[in-house]
Amino acid sequence: MTKDNETLRIIPLGGLHEIGKNTCVFEYDDEIILLDAGLAFPTDGMHGVNIVLPDMTYLRENSHKIKGMVITHGHEDHIGGIAFHLKQLDIPVMYGPKLALALLAGKLEEAGVSDRTELRTVSPRDIVRFGKHFFVEFIRNTHSIADSFSVAIHTPVGVVIHTGDFKFDHTPVDGEAFDIQRLAEYGEKGVHCLISDSTNAEIPGFTPSERSVFPNLDRVFSQAKGRLLVTTFASSVHRINMILELAEKHGRVVAVVGRSMLNVIAHARTLGYIKCKDDLLQPLHTIHKIPDENVLILTTGSQGEPMSAMTRISKGEHRQVKIREGDTVVFSANPIPGNTIAVVNTIDRLMMLGAKVIYGREHGIHVSGHGCQEDHKLMINLTRPKFFLPVHGEHRMLIKHSQTAQSMGIPAENMVIIDNGDVVELKKDSIRKGEKVPAGIELVDTSRSGMVDQRVLKERQQLAGDGMVTIAASINLDGRLFAKPEMHLRGVVSSVNRDQLQARIQDAIETVLRDRWSEFARTLDKKLEVDWAGLNVQIEREVQRILRRELQSNPLLVFLMQSPEPTAVKNAARQRTPAKVAS
Amino acid sequence: MTKDNETLRIIPLGGLHEIGKNTCVFEYDDEIILLDAGLAFPTDGMHGVNIVLPDMTYLRENSHKIKGMVITHGHEDHIGGIAFHLKQLDIPVMYGPKLALALLAGKLEEAGVSDRTELRTVSPRDIVRFGKHFFVEFIRNTHSIADSFSVAIHTPVGVVIHTGDFKFDHTPVDGEAFDIQRLAEYGEKGVHCLISDSTNAEIPGFTPSERSVFPNLDRVFSQAKGRLLVTTFASSVHRINMILELAEKHGRVVAVVGRSMLNVIAHARTLGYIKCKDDLLQPLHTIHKIPDENVLILTTGSQGEPMSAMTRISKGEHRQVKIREGDTVVFSANPIPGNTIAVVNTIDRLMMLGAKVIYGREHGIHVSGHGCQEDHKLMINLTRPKFFLPVHGEHRMLIKHSQTAQSMGIPAENMVIIDNGDVVELKKDSIRKGEKVPAGIELVDTSRSGMVDQRVLKERQQLAGDGMVTIAASINLDGRLFAKPEMHLRGVVSSVNRDQLQARIQDAIETVLRDRWSEFARTLDKKLEVDWAGLNVQIEREVQRILRRELQSNPLLVFLMQSPEPTAVKNAARQRTPAKVAS
Repeated sequence: MTKDNETLRIIPLGGLHEIGKNTCVFEYDDEIILLDAGLAFPTDGMHGVNIVLPDMTYLRENSHKIKGMVITHGHEDHIGGIAFHLKQLDIPVMYGPKLALALLAGKLEEAGVSDRTELRTVSPRDIVRFGKHFFVEFIRNTHSIADSFSVAIHTPVGVVIHTGDFKFDHTPVDGEAFDIQRLAEYGEKGVHCLISDSTNAEIPGFTPSERSVFPNLDRVFSQAKGRLLVTTFASSVHRINMILELAEKHGRVVAVVGRSMLNVIAHARTLGYIKCKDDLLQPLHTIHKIPDENVLILTTGSQGEPMSAMTRISKGEHRQVKIREGDTVVFSANPIPGNTIAVVNTIDRLMMLGAKVIYGREHGIHVSGHGCQEDHKLMINLTRPKFFLPVHGEHRMLIKHSQTAQSMGIPAENMVIIDNGDVVELKKDSIRKGEKVPAGIELVDTSRSGMVDQRVLKERQQLAGDGMVTIAASINLDGRLFAKPEMHLRGVVSSVNRDQLQARIQDAIETVLRDRWSEFARTLDKKLEVDWAGLNVQIEREVQRILRRELQSNPLLVFLMQSPEPTAVKNAARQRTPAKVAS
Repeated sequence: MTKDNETLRIIPLGGLHEIGKNTCVFEYDDEIILLDAGLAFPTDGMHGVNIVLPDMTYLRENSHKIKGMVITHGHEDHIGGIAFHLKQLDIPVMYGPKLALALLAGKLEEAGVSDRTELRTVSPRDIVRFGKHFFVEFIRNTHSIADSFSVAIHTPVGVVIHTGDFKFDHTPVDGEAFDIQRLAEYGEKGVHCLISDSTNAEIPGFTPSERSVFPNLDRVFSQAKGRLLVTTFASSVHRINMILELAEKHGRVVAVVGRSMLNVIAHARTLGYIKCKDDLLQPLHTIHKIPDENVLILTTGSQGEPMSAMTRISKGEHRQVKIREGDTVVFSANPIPGNTIAVVNTIDRLMMLGAKVIYGREHGIHVSGHGCQEDHKLMINLTRPKFFLPVHGEHRMLIKHSQTAQSMGIPAENMVIIDNGDVVELKKDSIRKGEKVPAGIELVDTSRSGMVDQRVLKERQQLAGDGMVTIAASINLDGRLFAKPEMHLRGVVSSVNRDQLQARIQDAIETVLRDRWSEFARTLDKKLEVDWAGLNVQIEREVQRILRRELQSNPLLVFLMQSPEPTAVKNAARQRTPAKVAS
C-alpha cells in the first residue's frame, strides 16, 4: 500500500460555522460514503430563497466513487437535501433508521426521485458494508427525535466514531437508552477519531432529560381553563408523545394543525413511535362541537415561521382556528437565534387577541436535544479517541468544544478546527487540514422550483435596497432623440423632483449624442452605419452616473434604446458589433 | 370648570409594543407637553430604511398647542427623533439634563434646526413650568447613561410620575444616587398615576448594579496578553468610565474608534461625566508604536451593526485596525433580540482571524440599565400610585408589568394596557382608553434624506421577493407589433426558458391586438383615433397574467408601449383619454 492510500479524507460540505445542512464525505482511495445530507434555511438578504444547500461540485465530479449514504436521524438539517442531490448524483443505497427513512421516502416521492436510490432500514448494532473499505455500525443514541443513531465507521486507518446529534438522556421517553456499552467497548478497543456534535459546546453542565419537561407541561395543562393550543417542533416525537399523553390525562381531544406536524405524526404512528388511542386525535373541523376545556390544538409554528399555522392563527388569518379570550397557548420550544423577533411578535399578537401565552425558559417546558459540556466530556471519556474533530456548530462552538477536549488530555495537535469544504486528512498517526474543495452554497426557491444564483440574489439585494429605474429613449437616424425619454421609478426614495430628474437625464443623453454621434455613426458606401451597441454603453454609463448623483443611491438601471429599427439595436447591443441600417 | 376640562389626555405615539421611539404627549385643555421623542431602527423587510419615527400627524394638527418638551435622558430612543420633528413642529422650549442636551445640540446643528427651539438644562429637583397647566419636577434616577431623570408632572387632575428609563442602582458608578427620598415624598403626598418602564418586566429579581461589572472586567483585562479591543454601547457613559479606569490600572492607553463613541466621549469629557487623564486617550494612528500589551481599543459595534467599527474590523475591512493572533476582544454588551445573529457572526469572524473573544452572560461583563420585577415593585411601593400605566415595552412586557402591579394591590380597573396612538383619559377618579389618534410609522432613508412611503416599501418588497420584468413593445398604426417585444429580467428566478417566455408574451400581445384593436382604434373624420391608454391597460394586464403563470411568481412589471408617436402614447397613458394620431 502506498502512503497515499493510507489517508482517509473527511470532507464536511455543510454543517460547519453554522447549524444546518449537515453533509459529510468520507473518502478513501476510490470510494466515497456520505453521512447525512441536510438543508439550511436562508438568512437575511437571501430574498426569495427558501432552502439553502451545500455546493455539490466536489460530489458531482466524484459521483462515480459514491458507494452509499449513512443517515443518522430524520431531522431536516440531516435529510432535507437528499431529494435535491439525487437529481444530480448517483447514490446507490442509503442506510438509516426506520423513522428517518419513512420521512425521507415521502420527500423522494414528492420530488419524483424515489427510483434513484434504495432505502434500507437498520436496527441498533447493525453493521453495513460499503465497497471494499468501509463498514459502519449503527449505535443507538438519544436525541430530540426518536430513532437516532451514532455510528462507528471502520476504515483502513482505524475506527472513526461520528456521534450524530446527541445528548445523554438517561431516562428517555421511549425507554430506548443510549447504547453506552457499545461506545465504551469501542473506547476500550481504541477509537482512532471522534467526530462530535458541538451545538451546545458553550453551555456548562448536562442537558436535562426530555422527561424533565413532563411535570412542567402537566402543571401548565392543569391550569388551563379554556382551549389549549400547544406548539413545538414537528419532529420532536418524544415531546409530541408526552403532549398526547397529557391531553388524555386532562380529558382533552387533540386536533393537529400544520402540514409537517400531520406528516410526522402520521409516519410516527404507523411505525409505532407515537402511541395513542385512535379517538384521541380528532379532525380540526369537528372540534367546535367539543367544549373548550376538552380541546387541545397541536400546531406547527413554534419558531414564528411566516407561513406556519401558529403564525397565521396569531394574525387572525387561519380559517379554522380563531383565538378567543380564555385560550391558553403553550410554546414548548425555545426560539432558535435569528427567530427570536418572529417568535415574540407572534406571542404579542396572541396576547393581544386575548390568549394567555406560556413561553420562556422559566417554565421548564422545553429542553434541548443536544448535549452540553458535561455530555461532551462523557462522550470523550467513553470513546477515548486519539484524534478529535468537532463538527455541527458555529466557529466559536467548535473552538469551545476543542477546548473541552484539550481539558481532558487530548493534545491540541490531535484536533483540527475546520470550515465547510476543508479536507481533513486522517492518517494512522496524524490529522491535518489539507486542500479545500468548493463549498459555497446553492440557493433554492422551491416555490418556483429554480435555483437562485448569486447574480439573481445580488440583483434582488440591489432592488431591495435602492429600487430600480427604467429609461427608454428612442434615437433617430440623425442622432437626435425622437422624443422625451420615458422614465419609470420603482422602489426609489428621493426628495429629488421627478421632472427635474427626467430633464437632467434627457440633457445627459443629448450631450452624449451631440458630442459623440460622429464616433458611432459613419456613412460608408452611401449606407449609414451606426454602432448602436457602443452608443448604448456610452449613454447607459452616463445615465447611471446622473442617477447616482441625483438620487444618492445606486438603483438598478434598465436602459432601453430604440432606433427606427429596434431589432437591429437589440441585436447589436447583444453582439457588440455595429449593425447596418439603410440610410 | 367643565367635566371635559378635567381630563388629562396621555398619548404615547411611540414606545409601546416595541422598544424604541419613545414619544409621549400630555394634553390638557389647549396645552400639550411632550416627553422625549426617540427613534427606532428598521425591522426585516424595511428595505433601505435606516430610521423609523412615529407618525406625527396628531402633533402636526395640534402644533399650536405645544408648550414644550421634557427630556429624561440622552439615549437615541428618547432624543433621536427631535431633529426630524423640529422641521415640521413648533416646539418652543426643551428642558433636559446637561448630557442629553449636549448630544441633542449636536444633532440639531447637523440637521440645521438649532434655531428652531431653545434648550434649557435642568438640575435635580428643578421644577419647570409649561403654560397654565403643567409643572414638571426632575428627579434624579439611575440608568445606563449618566445624568438621567424621572419626572413628576403636576397636572390639574393630579401628580403623574413618569419613571423615564430606570433601575435602582444603589452603588452607581458616578456616585449620583437615585433620589428615592423625593419619590417617597411624592408617594406620601399622593401620586395620581405612575407611568413606568416595562423593559425587563419578564425578568424576576433586581437588576445588578452597574458597578458589579467592574471586578469581572478587571479579571478579563488582567488575563489579556496582547492588545485589548473592547466594545460596548457608545452611550454607556458609566461603563466607559470603568473601562478607562481599568485601562489605566493595567497600563494601557486607549484609542477610541467609531463616530458615535468619539462623539459621546467628547461631550461627556467636556461636561465632566467622563474623567480621565489627557494622555490616557491616544489617537488611533499613533498606537502602532506602542507595545500590544499597553494598548486598548475602545470601539462601537457591540450589536453587530453592519457599518460599525467592530463589524468592519471583524471583516478585515477596517483600514487602521487589523486583528492578529494574541488580540483579546471583549463584548461588554448583550445582543438585543434581533441582533443576535449579527453579533455571533461578528464574534465568529473575530475568532477566525485569531482573536480570543470574551462574550456572553457567564462572564458578568454586562448588566442591563433597566429594572426587573423587584425594581418595579420598589418603584410602585415608593410612589403608591392610584392609577398605573405600564409603558416602554412590547405587549407581553406591559402585561407582565401590570400583573406585578396587581400583585401589589393596584386594582386591574385602575390600569390600562395601551398601544401607540391610544388616548389614555385620566380623570380624578378614573383611567380609561379613549379614542385613537394616527400612530403608524414614518420611515426615513437618511442616506438619501428622503421619507420612504409605504408604496415605495411595498415595491421594494416585491422587487426583493420576486424581482422585476421590463417589457417594451412598439405598435404600428395598423395594430401590429413593429418588432419582437424586448424583455429584461432582473432578480427573477425561473426554470422557464427565456426565449419561450418571450414568445409567449409576444403571442399574448398579438392576441390582444388581433382581437381588440378595433375596439381601441377608430377612424373619425379621416383621422385614426387610437385609445392608447385603454390598449395599454389591456395588454399590461394580459402580460402580467402570463408572467404569473409562467414564472409562478409575481415580479414587478414595467410595461412600455411605443407607437410611431411615443409622446402621444405616454400622455395618453397618463391622461387616460384617447390621443389623436394623423392617419
